[in-house]
Amino acid sequence: MKSQGMTVKKGITLLRETELFKGLNEGEIEKILNLCKEVRFKKNETVMREGEVGDELYIVIEGIVEVAKNLILEEPADDGNLSNKVFTKLKAEDHAVFGEMALLEESERTATITALTDCVFYKIKKFNFLKLAEADHELGYKILLNISRIVSSRLRKANEDIIKLTTALSIILKES
Amino acid sequence: MKSQGMTVKKGITLLRETELFKGLNEGEIEKILNLCKEVRFKKNETVMREGEVGDELYIVIEGIVEVAKNLILEEPADDGNLSNKVFTKLKAEDHAVFGEMALLEESERTATITALTDCVFYKIKKFNFLKLAEADHELGYKILLNISRIVSSRLRKANEDIIKLTTALSIILKES
Repeated sequence: MKSQGMTVKKGITLLRETELFKGLNEGEIEKILNLCKEVRFKKNETVMREGEVGDELYIVIEGIVEVAKNLILEEPADDGNLSNKVFTKLKAEDHAVFGEMALLEESERTATITALTDCVFYKIKKFNFLKLAEADHELGYKILLNISRIVSSRLRKANEDIIKLTTALSIILKES
Repeated sequence: MKSQGMTVKKGITLLRETELFKGLNEGEIEKILNLCKEVRFKKNETVMREGEVGDELYIVIEGIVEVAKNLILEEPADDGNLSNKVFTKLKAEDHAVFGEMALLEESERTATITALTDCVFYKIKKFNFLKLAEADHELGYKILLNISRIVSSRLRKANEDIIKLTTALSIILKES
């Protein structure tokens, strides 16, 4: 990765504190840093779009992004209704990572990410991550244990949401 | 694990064909087999109950189980209404595994599993799996890559269900 002084220092600190890289020692963090490509997006630029196929993970190093997720199928093109989407803001200080499922499989993005300020990210490509993990299984094991736990806790949350939604539907259908 | 002739042979074959152990070589499958404890359940016995905390994974070696999952919150005790649950049948031939999220974290079971016939399972405890994976990172890495991909594809499916449910809710609420 091209060295850029303060940004690199901030990058190392953020990598260390990111849930995805929990438990990694200094040498391992350096190996991860070597995979990272620094990329910059201007305010209002789209980083990734829901539904597009991607194979890169992003770590927010500087700035704030917006995560927007469709809640409704086949939203009409002329419908600017914001209530059909959920929005979340993520900041560098939150140790925000997105697209981490792309490290496991090339797959459709599950949200649209927009830069709300000028942003700096570290980008890691699936191919490079898997190559490193194959060469250093201990490192690969640690990161995959972290990813599995993150994805597993999201699945739990999604299953709870499904139960809430089917409960709401069942109440409405009984009342109607 | 206690050797039981044909069952062990069947066990090895099933472990090899299970998505969770995809890509493992013979020696690695043997190490997994050494973690497995053979357990038997009689027809109609409950193997695990939704909501209970567990730290064991089960692999179906012989027999058929039923997976039942609540779809509705706080089901009334006197309500035997089957429409509040979803049921799935899993057979040994399906290379059925359940409770695999327990390898990652001690957590609440997300479904109730009942033996529909006399069943034989292999049971693996989280502690023993993590101990083996820490001692053999290559093996740990391979299995975690498989688990991550399984959980990630389930998360995708759950997210699709959430979108379908919110779409249905939005249509009903607009019409009412």
